[in-house]
Amino acid sequence: MMRYKPEELTKLPRSVQFKSGKVILIDQLLLPREFKLVEIGSVREVARAIKTLQVRGAPAIGATAAYGLALLAEKSRAKNKDEFFDEFFEAYDVLKKTRPTAVNLFWALNRVKNLVEEHREDSLDEIRSLIVGEAHKIADEDVEANLRMGHFGAEILPEGNVLTHCNAGSLATVHLGTVGAVLRVMQKEGKLNLLWVDETRPVLQGARLSAWEYNYDGIPLKLISDNMAGFVMQQGKVDAIIVGADRIVANGDFANKIGTYSLAVLAKEHGIPFFTVAPLSTIDMSLKSGKEIPIEERPKEEILTCGGCRIAPDVDVYNPAFDVTPHKYLTGIITDRGVVYPPFERNLKKLLKV
Amino acid sequence: MMRYKPEELTKLPRSVQFKSGKVILIDQLLLPREFKLVEIGSVREVARAIKTLQVRGAPAIGATAAYGLALLAEKSRAKNKDEFFDEFFEAYDVLKKTRPTAVNLFWALNRVKNLVEEHREDSLDEIRSLIVGEAHKIADEDVEANLRMGHFGAEILPEGNVLTHCNAGSLATVHLGTVGAVLRVMQKEGKLNLLWVDETRPVLQGARLSAWEYNYDGIPLKLISDNMAGFVMQQGKVDAIIVGADRIVANGDFANKIGTYSLAVLAKEHGIPFFTVAPLSTIDMSLKSGKEIPIEERPKEEILTCGGCRIAPDVDVYNPAFDVTPHKYLTGIITDRGVVYPPFERNLKKLLKV
Repeated sequence: MMRYKPEELTKLPRSVQFKSGKVILIDQLLLPREFKLVEIGSVREVARAIKTLQVRGAPAIGATAAYGLALLAEKSRAKNKDEFFDEFFEAYDVLKKTRPTAVNLFWALNRVKNLVEEHREDSLDEIRSLIVGEAHKIADEDVEANLRMGHFGAEILPEGNVLTHCNAGSLATVHLGTVGAVLRVMQKEGKLNLLWVDETRPVLQGARLSAWEYNYDGIPLKLISDNMAGFVMQQGKVDAIIVGADRIVANGDFANKIGTYSLAVLAKEHGIPFFTVAPLSTIDMSLKSGKEIPIEERPKEEILTCGGCRIAPDVDVYNPAFDVTPHKYLTGIITDRGVVYPPFERNLKKLLKV
Repeated sequence: MMRYKPEELTKLPRSVQFKSGKVILIDQLLLPREFKLVEIGSVREVARAIKTLQVRGAPAIGATAAYGLALLAEKSRAKNKDEFFDEFFEAYDVLKKTRPTAVNLFWALNRVKNLVEEHREDSLDEIRSLIVGEAHKIADEDVEANLRMGHFGAEILPEGNVLTHCNAGSLATVHLGTVGAVLRVMQKEGKLNLLWVDETRPVLQGARLSAWEYNYDGIPLKLISDNMAGFVMQQGKVDAIIVGADRIVANGDFANKIGTYSLAVLAKEHGIPFFTVAPLSTIDMSLKSGKEIPIEERPKEEILTCGGCRIAPDVDVYNPAFDVTPHKYLTGIITDRGVVYPPFERNLKKLLKV
C-alpha cells in the first residue's frame, strides 16, 4: 500500500542526516530567509544545535541526538573499550541535557545506550558499528512511520482544501513530517486543492516553517493569521483540518500547539472533519484524560514580541505553549498503524494490543 | 442614570481636542512606546495626521476632521465671505480625501458643511463661530454616547472576567471608547476582575493600543495571542466577551475586526454571553443581512510582517480586514439608547423609531 517513496513526495533533503563523519542539519534558525545545510563534526556542536533550536520538532531532535552518538562512535580515538565507554557516557549526558522536556530525545538516546549495554562484551569495532547502525535505524523508522501515516491519511481525507496549524512537517521530523506526509501524498494524488497555513503565534512555526516548506514543495497555499481560520471556514473554504499532536492520552484527548482547541471547536461548528496525525509513540495510555496533561507556560517575551520586534507595552500576559482538545471534537487519529475512530478509548486499546 | 463623568472613568485626556487654535491629538504612531500629545496648526497637517494614522478609529477620525474645519474657521485671514468659502471648501475637499472608506469622516465633514450652507447669509464672524461650535458638538456628542453605552453595558454585564478584541477604547473615539466605556464603568463599580486582551493580528490593535490604554487606567489585564482565547474560555476564565462593531445591519448581523466571528463561535460553545457595543450611527438598516456587507482585503505585507519585522517567506496570503458575525451568536447589542436583545430585526426597528 506504500505507493510513493519519500523522494517522490518532497524535494527537501532529510532534516537530519549522517554522512562521512558529519551530522548534517537543515539550519532552522536561518529559515525562512535562507535554506542552508550545516555540517557538524563534534558531540558538543550537536548539543549546541539542539539547544539553540537549529533543529526542533521531537522526532528530528531524537534522531539528531542518536546521530550525535554515532558521530562519537565513528570519530573516537579511544584505545580500548573502557576509554570508549567513558567518552560514550559523557556524550550521552551532554546530549541528554540539551532539552529538559523532550521525550523523543531521551527515548532515542536510551535506545542507543541500552544497545551498547547489551553488547558490552562485543569488540570495540562491533560496538562502534552497532551504534551507527542503531542511529540510522531510528532515523529510517521515523521516515517509514511518516510515510505510512501519509498514505493512511491521504486515503481517508476528502479532496479539497486543508487547513493546518503549527509545523508538523518535514522540518519537525527526519523527513516528510506527520501532517506533512499526509499533505504530500494528497498533493501527489491530486487531492489537495489549497493548503491554509495558520501563522501560529506566538512562535510562528506556521509562518516561518510550514509556509516555507510546503511552498518549497510546490503545494498551493495561503498564509493567514490565526484569527482568520473561523472566517475561512464560514465561507466554506476548508474541507478538512489536520494537525500534529504532542501527546494523545487513553480516551483520545490530545495536547498540541496552542490554538488547536479553538480550531477544533470551529471545525465542529462548521461540520468540518478534524484529524490529528501522530505515530504510536505519541500515545500515552498512562493518562486517562486530557485533564491530566500538564500545560507548559512559556516566557512573557514571546507575547510581547513577534518575529523579533517589540509589539506591546510591558503588561501581564498569559502564554500557554499547548492546549488540550477533548476527543469529542476529533474525527479520527491518523497513526502509522492505521486510522483510529471513536470510541477512541476502546479503539486505541485495540490498536496498541495488536 | 449617568453615575460617572468621563474624568472619573479615565486618566486619559480626550484623544482629539481643540484648544487655542490647535488640534491636539494623542499620537497613536508613537504608542505603545511613548504617550505624547501632538499639536497641529494647519488643515494640511490635520489631513496628514489622519492619513498617516496618527489618529485612527472612526469616531476619532470624524471629530478630528471637524476640528480641522474649526481650525480653518479660527485662523483664516479671509477678508470677506467669498474668500472664506473658497478656503472652507478647499479644506473640506482635502480632509475628505484622507481615508476613502471612513463613513464617520464624511458624516462629520458634511454635518459642518451643511450647517455652513444653511447659514450662508450670516456674517463671517457668525459662520466662523458656528463651525467651531459644531465641531465641539460632534466631539461632545461622541463622548456622551460612549458614556451612555458605558452605563448601559455595565448594568447588564456579569461581574468577573471580560475578554475583548481589537481596540474600541478611548483611542478609537474622542474619549472613553465604546467597549472602553463599558469596561471603565465596570471597573469603577468593582465588577471587572480581569480583562483578557487579544493581540489582534495582523495590525495588533489589541497589543499596541488596548493593552496600553487599559493598563494606563489601571485595569487588571492579561494580553494573549488570538489563538489562546478558546483555551482561556475552556478553563472557565471568561465570563463575557464585548467587542465593537464597524457596521450592524437590520437583522443584527455585524461586521467587526477579523477574528470576531471565531470568538463568537467559541463563546457559544462555552455558554459565554457575547455583546457588541456601538452607537446608533453604526446601524445600517439598508442592508438586510450580513451577507451583503462587503469585506475589505488589506495588503499582503500585513500578514508577511508583524510589528515591523518580516516573519514569513514570500508566499500567497489571505488578509480580510473584517469578518461578519451572524446575529444568532449575539447575546445583545449595547447602544447609546439602551441594550437591544433578540429578536434583533424587530427590536432594532423599534429602537430606531423611538
